[in-house]
Order: sequence, then C-alpha cells, then structure tokens
Amino acid sequence: MREPANRRIVLAARPQGLPTLQDFDMVTAPVTPPGPGEVLLRTLYLSLDPYMRNLMDPVGPGYAPPVAIGATMVGGTVSRVVASRHPGFAEGDLVLANAGWQDHALSDGSDLVPLGDLAQPSLALGGLGMPGFTAHVGLLDIGAPLPGETVVVAAATGAVGSVVGQVAKIRGARVVGIAGGSGKCRVAVEELGFDACVDHRDAHFAERLAAACPQGIDVYFENVGGAVLDAVLPHLNVGARVPVCGFIAHYNDTAPQGPDRRPELLAAVLQKRIRMQGFIILDHYGPRFDAFRREMGEWVAAGRVKLREDRVEGLEQAPSAFIGLLQGRNAGKLVVRVHAD
Amino acid sequence: MREPANRRIVLAARPQGLPTLQDFDMVTAPVTPPGPGEVLLRTLYLSLDPYMRNLMDPVGPGYAPPVAIGATMVGGTVSRVVASRHPGFAEGDLVLANAGWQDHALSDGSDLVPLGDLAQPSLALGGLGMPGFTAHVGLLDIGAPLPGETVVVAAATGAVGSVVGQVAKIRGARVVGIAGGSGKCRVAVEELGFDACVDHRDAHFAERLAAACPQGIDVYFENVGGAVLDAVLPHLNVGARVPVCGFIAHYNDTAPQGPDRRPELLAAVLQKRIRMQGFIILDHYGPRFDAFRREMGEWVAAGRVKLREDRVEGLEQAPSAFIGLLQGRNAGKLVVRVHAD
Repeated sequence: MREPANRRIVLAARPQGLPTLQDFDMVTAPVTPPGPGEVLLRTLYLSLDPYMRNLMDPVGPGYAPPVAIGATMVGGTVSRVVASRHPGFAEGDLVLANAGWQDHALSDGSDLVPLGDLAQPSLALGGLGMPGFTAHVGLLDIGAPLPGETVVVAAATGAVGSVVGQVAKIRGARVVGIAGGSGKCRVAVEELGFDACVDHRDAHFAERLAAACPQGIDVYFENVGGAVLDAVLPHLNVGARVPVCGFIAHYNDTAPQGPDRRPELLAAVLQKRIRMQGFIILDHYGPRFDAFRREMGEWVAAGRVKLREDRVEGLEQAPSAFIGLLQGRNAGKLVVRVHAD
Repeated sequence: MREPANRRIVLAARPQGLPTLQDFDMVTAPVTPPGPGEVLLRTLYLSLDPYMRNLMDPVGPGYAPPVAIGATMVGGTVSRVVASRHPGFAEGDLVLANAGWQDHALSDGSDLVPLGDLAQPSLALGGLGMPGFTAHVGLLDIGAPLPGETVVVAAATGAVGSVVGQVAKIRGARVVGIAGGSGKCRVAVEELGFDACVDHRDAHFAERLAAACPQGIDVYFENVGGAVLDAVLPHLNVGARVPVCGFIAHYNDTAPQGPDRRPELLAAVLQKRIRMQGFIILDHYGPRFDAFRREMGEWVAAGRVKLREDRVEGLEQAPSAFIGLLQGRNAGKLVVRVHAD
C-alpha cells in the first residue's frame, strides 16, 4: 500500500511577539521511502511545548539551533515504524522520536527510543517523558525540598508544573500552585493534591500568594517569570532555591517591558542567600533518565502522580493549539493526535 | 589619666542616592567608664566597607538592622582595651571589635576577637579579616574555579576583588580584573599578578573585556552589577558560577535605571545553566573562618597574596572617605586610622 502524501507544518515567518497562524504554513509532498539504514515513521502523537517558541526566533536559545524559515517545526513525537531498512527496528515498532510537526519522517534510528507496548503511549511525551523528567530533575536535583518546606510552582496544571507539585507532595513539602483561572486552581487542589493554588489573574494575587505561604517560600520552581516572579520574590526565605526551567511570560516579548527589575533580583539573591540555577533537560539524559522513568512509572501506576493530558485532534490544529499553549489555554500536557493507531 | 571626650559620627539624615557630608554629624560626649563585665575600647583603625551604605537606608538589607537616625554609624574596628572590668580582657589587649565610627566604645566582650600582637593590625579589617574571608568563601565555596578556567572580578584593586583575583591565581585560574581607570588596571596586573585587567571607563570596555576572555568566563564574582554585569553576561560559559557578593553600582539607586534587564538575566541563567548564589559572610564564621585565617596568613606571609591598604588619617575624615569608596576613589582596603597606638 502506498503511504499518502506527507503534510508538514513549516515556519513561514518569524513571529513578532505572540505567534499568529500566518507564521505557519502547511506544505504537502510525497512520502520519501527509507534509504539503507533508515526507518520511515508515521506520527501518532506530537508534543507541543513552550520551548518551541524560542526556536522560532532568528537567534536560538543556544542549546538548540533555531528553526529555519521554510523548515519543518521541530517537536518530540510518538511514532510507529511503518517501513524499516534499519536492522534495529521492525515495521510496527512504537518509538519516541523527534519527527516534528508532520505526518511522516525518516530517521537513521540514532534519535529513537523504543517504547515497547506502553498502555498510553502519549504519556511518553508528558509525565513519563521530557516534561516529567524536567520536573523531576529541576525539583529534586536543584530545588531539593525538605519535608515541611514550602514549594511554589506556577503553571500548576501544566505538563511540568503539575508533576513538580505532586512530586514535592510525595517528598513531604507543602505545595502552593499558581495558575491562570479558578478552574485550574480547583484542579490543582482537588485533583492533583496541592495544598493551595492561587489564581494569578486575581486582582489580589500577591496578597493571596502571601497568605498561602505563611512560612515563606523555600523552593520556587521558575517556569514563568514576569508578574509571578514579582509576587514570589518578597516571600523567598533565606537559603531558598530557584531552579530556572523557563519563563514563558517573556517568550513573546519584543522589547523590555517596564523599568529595570534586575537590581531588585540581585538584592534578593544576595540578602536571602538564594541559589538560582538554570538547567536544560537535554544535559541530564542517560542514567538519570532511567532513574526518573523507574520512579515516575511506579508513582503513576500507584496513582500517586496523576498525569493530565489536553489532546487536540489533527496535525492541522497544531498551530492554533500551540498559540493557545503560550496563552495558557491548555489544561494539562498538550499533545496533538496526528494519526489514529 | 582621664580619657578625652568621645567623638562619634552619627547618621544625620537618610541619603538620597550617593551620601553627602550633610548626611553625617559628629557628636561629642564624655567617655562612659566600663560597668561590671564591660571593657572600654579605644579605636585604632576603623574599617569602611560598601555594605554600610545599605544600613543607611530606612529598610535594612535583612541580615542587619538599619542604622537609626542619630545613632552611631556601625563598623568593624581594631581597638585597644583601655580599661577592663571583664575577666577575659586586660588593659592593653588588642582586639577586633565592632566599635563603629567613634573614638571609644564599651563592649561586654561577646563580639571581641583577641588579635594577639599582629604585626600590622589593620590587616585584620582587610585581607586577613572580613573582606578577605568574603573573597575566600565566595570564590572557593561558591565559584569553585578549576585550573585553567577564567575568573572575572570587578573592583579588582578593592579589598575583596584584589583577594579574589590573587586566590584564583593560586588555584590555577586565568584571572581578568575590571577596575575604574588605567592606574588601577596597572596595579592589578603588575602588582597583584592578574592576567589582564580592563578599565570599565574605557569607551570600548565591552569589546576589551571580550578580548581579554577568549575562552569565555567560568566564574564571575559579582560585586558590582550594572554596566559591568551587562558586559560580562554574554561571555559567561555554560555551567558558569556567579557568587553574588554585592552590587555597588546600585547601592545609590533611588529608582530603577532604564529598561527591564531581568528577563535577559533569566535567559542567560537558563540557557547557560548558570548557578547564581548570594552569600552573606556573617553566615560563614566558625571553623570556616579558622581555615581561612590559617591559609590566608600563610599566603600573605609567603608574599603570594599582597594586601593593599588605603589609609585615611583621623575619624573626621571617615564620611568623605566613605563617599569616595562608593565612587571607587580608594586604592585598596580603605581604613581610617582613628588613634595612633
């Protein structure tokens, strides 16, 4: 049977601020059959993640090259091997891949991770994959919360934040989430088991956050920046740890917003002896990933960590879903189901 | 013999920006004799340090209370015990004290450190005391330079920076100083043995710093902030460490200067996996101080660390000397000789 044509979503223009649908284009071409040593993949699930915004700028973030104009948007996928000329992979294998925003892709196998027969394979893009690993490394290796300490995490129902909070609870911390909207806050407390969650859209956000952290904040998992960081900063305790995972509030900035807040940050770091440490999850794979997968697999199987997924149907929905992600419109890990299995 | 009257310099007004002479006042009163358990101290040397500026603001830096209006300016001193009703101290003892900006002070002994008969007692306020200890802890415990790595330190001829650079050289690092003026830069290279020193007043400062750090920057000892941090940031290497000791460029800020540079700092911390950690030297005394004193004493005795002192004569000169310190006018550790011994 001939494979149908391959649709791929390419970067059409560099976004000014928040991306628009016009910054993407869909291009169709015949599927290329695999050459010697290659496999042909069909995308089942495509992961959409905030870091992708950084790859759309002309100068990339350093740890990965920017996407060229006209090139396929990059992204992690769960894919099915549909043809193989690689000795290590057989037709029908389920793999974790980096196929990007497209129906099909070729791979030489070097970037593929066999997934066996995972009950819910899309979780390999979420809590059991890169976002869950990001939460695990950032919280445990850098944040290192002690029992009874207070951990604050924003984007509390997002792919990373939801895992940060639940793992911190397992480690005995008091966990305060920050999320956009009362619905998300309810999910964080009632479903994910956070001790409290504060709505950053609330007019009294800063006071509510303070009230939710009567013992101050010992670990702030930074994935937002902006006004959330403003509200957190005065409540950081002496010796607080701030793993810096991202700062989605600024990804769409085209110019500095408002007066300089760097001296105030330096003052807090100094006076409170704060340890602020950035990390890029790509650095941490290897044995550390195996340890994560074992532990997280057990937690998920035991129901101690709940993984929420926000699933969108169809590759053509990827651009609008991605724009929504940057606006906080997703509820859980955002994945696109590209092809039914 | 009666002690003469005690002169003390008090905080007359809270400075707006850079302090002026009008923010200080000199008050004279009779010397109070020691009560039971007390000693009377005569100040030989008064230390002037940048942190004192922070104690002049209405809200203190957290680790120490602000100086009240009308209260004596605080400060470390080398003092002589001139009368004692304390069993642990005898008339004539030389001690490290916190007598502040005055001729005489009473102490219950709890904050005094016996100095024995140090050849140059004022060094107990500099390289063998708090500033040297600050350099030692910040550089070695937080910065942790490896042989061959590049260490950058500003205020390169100052009390802390000069020791940071020399200790980094002993540890095998390449050391690049930053200082204000070509004279100071010459001192850093020719006298203190830095590999290079860049004048931050030079119109091509940023380019010259880049040229002096061809392998990038692995440790940036932050004691300045502002334009120096701007120039350093693009050259920090992946995995760089930034001990945050102070940021004298901002101590006199009355309002934010210019657009927000916090997002840019967060981006650098994230993308380069930087560890930025504040420290307050008061936290580190105890056994760590003994280790420092032993090691630094050997280095100084062997001529491996040279300690420069900028000595001002007379208590009445303290305010103008302190204002000069905040403007970078000192050359080495600034001390006031209050009384000849």
